[in-house]
Amino acid sequence: MSTDTASLKAEVDRLRLDLQALQATSGAKGISIGNYLLTRLAQLGVNSMFGLPGDFNLGFLDVVDDFPDIDWVGNCNELNAGYAADGYARIKAGSLGVILTTFGVGELSAMNGIAGAFSEMVPVLHIVGTPSTIQQKTKPLLHHTLGDGRFDAYRHAASHFSIHNAYLSDKATAARQIDDVLTACITKARPVYLTLPTDMVNVEISSERLKIPLSNAPASNPEQTEEFVLDLIDQRVKEAEGDVVVIVDACVIRHGCREEVKDFLKQTGFPVYATPMGKTAVDENYKRYGGIYVGSLTNPVIKEKVENAKLIISIGSLLSDFNTGNFSYNIPTRRHIELHSGHTLVQYGRFDGVGMKNLLPKLSDRLKSFHSVSSKIEVPAFIKELPHEDSAIITHKWFWPRLSFFFKPKDVIVTETGTSNFGILDVPLPANAVMVSQILWGSIGWSVGSCLGAALAARETGLNRTILFVGDGSIQLTVQEISVMIRKGLKPIIFILNNKGYTIERLIHGKHRKYNDIADWNWTSLLNTLNDGNKIETASYTVNNKRELSDLLDDASFASADKIQVVEVIMDALDAPLSLVRQAELTGKGNTYGKP
Amino acid sequence: MSTDTASLKAEVDRLRLDLQALQATSGAKGISIGNYLLTRLAQLGVNSMFGLPGDFNLGFLDVVDDFPDIDWVGNCNELNAGYAADGYARIKAGSLGVILTTFGVGELSAMNGIAGAFSEMVPVLHIVGTPSTIQQKTKPLLHHTLGDGRFDAYRHAASHFSIHNAYLSDKATAARQIDDVLTACITKARPVYLTLPTDMVNVEISSERLKIPLSNAPASNPEQTEEFVLDLIDQRVKEAEGDVVVIVDACVIRHGCREEVKDFLKQTGFPVYATPMGKTAVDENYKRYGGIYVGSLTNPVIKEKVENAKLIISIGSLLSDFNTGNFSYNIPTRRHIELHSGHTLVQYGRFDGVGMKNLLPKLSDRLKSFHSVSSKIEVPAFIKELPHEDSAIITHKWFWPRLSFFFKPKDVIVTETGTSNFGILDVPLPANAVMVSQILWGSIGWSVGSCLGAALAARETGLNRTILFVGDGSIQLTVQEISVMIRKGLKPIIFILNNKGYTIERLIHGKHRKYNDIADWNWTSLLNTLNDGNKIETASYTVNNKRELSDLLDDASFASADKIQVVEVIMDALDAPLSLVRQAELTGKGNTYGKP
Repeated sequence: MSTDTASLKAEVDRLRLDLQALQATSGAKGISIGNYLLTRLAQLGVNSMFGLPGDFNLGFLDVVDDFPDIDWVGNCNELNAGYAADGYARIKAGSLGVILTTFGVGELSAMNGIAGAFSEMVPVLHIVGTPSTIQQKTKPLLHHTLGDGRFDAYRHAASHFSIHNAYLSDKATAARQIDDVLTACITKARPVYLTLPTDMVNVEISSERLKIPLSNAPASNPEQTEEFVLDLIDQRVKEAEGDVVVIVDACVIRHGCREEVKDFLKQTGFPVYATPMGKTAVDENYKRYGGIYVGSLTNPVIKEKVENAKLIISIGSLLSDFNTGNFSYNIPTRRHIELHSGHTLVQYGRFDGVGMKNLLPKLSDRLKSFHSVSSKIEVPAFIKELPHEDSAIITHKWFWPRLSFFFKPKDVIVTETGTSNFGILDVPLPANAVMVSQILWGSIGWSVGSCLGAALAARETGLNRTILFVGDGSIQLTVQEISVMIRKGLKPIIFILNNKGYTIERLIHGKHRKYNDIADWNWTSLLNTLNDGNKIETASYTVNNKRELSDLLDDASFASADKIQVVEVIMDALDAPLSLVRQAELTGKGNTYGKP
Repeated sequence: MSTDTASLKAEVDRLRLDLQALQATSGAKGISIGNYLLTRLAQLGVNSMFGLPGDFNLGFLDVVDDFPDIDWVGNCNELNAGYAADGYARIKAGSLGVILTTFGVGELSAMNGIAGAFSEMVPVLHIVGTPSTIQQKTKPLLHHTLGDGRFDAYRHAASHFSIHNAYLSDKATAARQIDDVLTACITKARPVYLTLPTDMVNVEISSERLKIPLSNAPASNPEQTEEFVLDLIDQRVKEAEGDVVVIVDACVIRHGCREEVKDFLKQTGFPVYATPMGKTAVDENYKRYGGIYVGSLTNPVIKEKVENAKLIISIGSLLSDFNTGNFSYNIPTRRHIELHSGHTLVQYGRFDGVGMKNLLPKLSDRLKSFHSVSSKIEVPAFIKELPHEDSAIITHKWFWPRLSFFFKPKDVIVTETGTSNFGILDVPLPANAVMVSQILWGSIGWSVGSCLGAALAARETGLNRTILFVGDGSIQLTVQEISVMIRKGLKPIIFILNNKGYTIERLIHGKHRKYNDIADWNWTSLLNTLNDGNKIETASYTVNNKRELSDLLDDASFASADKIQVVEVIMDALDAPLSLVRQAELTGKGNTYGKP
């Protein structure tokens, strides 16, 4: 089915659902609201639900527990659960992540996780078990309240970080509210918020609507505007004589356009580069792929190729500071075309409603005639190269290239804010490997919770190993979630870069200040402490030098990832990938701390 | 200085500060805004600051690092830091807790901690390091933003959980804004929120205002209303022929009225009882103290004494579900007088503006004539009694009385939501022991962070040991903060009640459901894993039966708390204090889960 047809089909279904909401459905088969919600989630490919029990969601948890297609994960805390739902959604393309918390105490703990999903455009549903509809009216001084009768304060706070909210209180509208909130979540790729009062969970409603599936297909583009845009871009490419470069970015991944982009590149032969947040939007072993473009921090060879092209087509761009070398793109508007999820920019002109998912297939068709010319444009090879260093110390300059020989196709690679997010940019990943990072929101500790969700999703979708890179500072924020990985039988490889503190902060400011120090944990005893009654096999290693790391990576048993493993990597406190050093300097300047 | 005089002195100072804001102070000695803030905090008795570094607060952290009177704690994550600030404020009467976070990612993670302080009336200042004033105007797509230019979303969300907010952006008003936010915090005993942009930290302002201290003294009571209230209460006590019972509750502690209450009780001889949240508001070895009143869940002997008194005077009451046996007070309004921080209720009449801190000394004077009668009213002894049980298993029924023999004067006892919060109610604590719990907000995991703050405050104020009681479920939410206790050389005794999951939830609903299960950690290896490079001495124990626990408690070295210690206490998954069993049943009913 073409993207366009999918859009039309989705529109028909949405209209049918609207119609149905207005028709009597008293004769239809009944289903409880709790089960209606779960059935919708299962239809959308959700097989795991994150969160914690709390007395206002226990009734719904009974329903979850009894529901065959969705597994209750049971996290250690709500922030971690939010991160896990985010990681899960990032891997399960087209589906969403779901977190269930309890009124007040639970939901507020998850807020940073949800806000991160908002910022980074990840579809997450936050279900909050609340006091009953009666209690919400009579407002008794219940535990988990603010003590002043404001039962709506939490939802007001949450509304800043979700694009759609539904507060269930009426069985007549519940199904529609659930459908609307889910549709918003999957079409806009942003968090949504749903309150489920204790007394609504088991109320029976009609199951009729469940026959019509929900769709994440975007609306069709306005026909005439789209035609105009196609003509315009065609003309511009002609004027550029096919000297075009494509930059892929975060929203290609978030709005499910990987396939459309792949086909566009194949048909046109245009060279392609990725931003940090767009890494793995295009397979990094694709022969026309040249590596990472990040403004002034770009490798000079790539920078020259990108910025000197006569025309640059950005797809799904997200121009945040850490994604652009601190806003240092050197691409003038008159040579720039930007395809976004809901609009298109051609030089100075903006075309609202023309979204990339439907536009790309037509654009491929229009521009394929340039293939013979464009496919001859030289693309620098983005290859693995291990630098020779005399010192035995593990440096970032050596570490990431060395790891690149360890990665396999379909690996899921999760990197934490800090040295890992920058280091991974320097090396190519194998075909169908997926990289997950949180470059815009940049909340330290996110990667640990996210790794849990990603590993579950990877297992559900038949991906390969899950590999986490996290610093010793960041992992301390969310460390308990490793216990849930163990309990769920997941087998990630967790590289803990032990550089004695917050290295990214040291580089930005306060290099030797004690506020950037942390406690030096006993990392190799961590899995033992967090194990579930010593039932699960684990392994932990410390590597102090290049040789020890290389030997470990070359060990077939280690590489097979047949158990959960922690590798403590000893690194220097001030060593970092060059791109981070330069980014940190720019960030520090922007913050104008004043006298030191 | 009498309370009244303190009120007048505070009012004079506030007027002077107002005056000064209108006068030119260009000739005054300069001080940076960062140092102004810290000086104010030091004046208010703050010696520790909680939080995490983030690039928007690093400049201010330099100032903190260089400031001699305030120690930077450096937590593992922001939620824990919020809990720690809460625990610190609870112990340091008259002072406040302070947490410093960074824009977005940091501050949102702390939100549940702050909301808990709001609910429970704890004075906490949340300082947020934000982008510079210029960036806040130009709104670049910075990391830690939502990607849509809404730089004010976080502060809007925070405003639901603070009673006063100040967003610094102008040097002319900065000092006054800081003073106002701090005054609101300490007088209303609630959280406040302050944003500190990177470029404001080192801006010089006048230090003139620092000469006038800030005060937490409440405003004077309106003279004539107060006189009327005193007459009225005097009359009611006469009619009751001195048959009066006093109930002390949370706000006695929160609004710093312990001394006034103590004197009131001594002068009048009235019998006194405490609610769960009011425990230790009055010394539990005071001869006229009879134990805990918690509505229908009360020990029948106490219940009869309280509810049959002709007049009941509640001081600082907070009538939440868990504090009242699910709203089961049997005290008719016509026999009830309530003294609150800002108003007084005499039977059906409400007297706004008449606050207890100023009223109590006058009331003591008025009612002391009843001492000869009232001091003869019998008060049931609240004594330690160890029940005999044949079984070796450690039960709650035995555990808490056994522990009561272990407690010493001036111990700080922190209890977690769940079995601990209820179990501790059954036993009396020694003189000047302080109990800290979060009964209204009830966020599980809170006690671990709070214990860190409480232990620091205890050390600063010369209290005795800090003893934490927490379940194996709750501690998993916030466990990493134990690492900070170790690093800071604190020596709490941590009792982990290992009952294999969320026992309080099991009692409310889902007794055998797997969503109430958790991973079974290796608790005795925890301190080793979280230690700081194995530098600090620690000790861990598992006690499987009564004998092992008793032997440990009787060990002088253990009891001396000369190092940090973990005691894993093996208990049955479904065992709980009787009052929790009954409360859970009532809560479950209120939640009307529908069919199981």
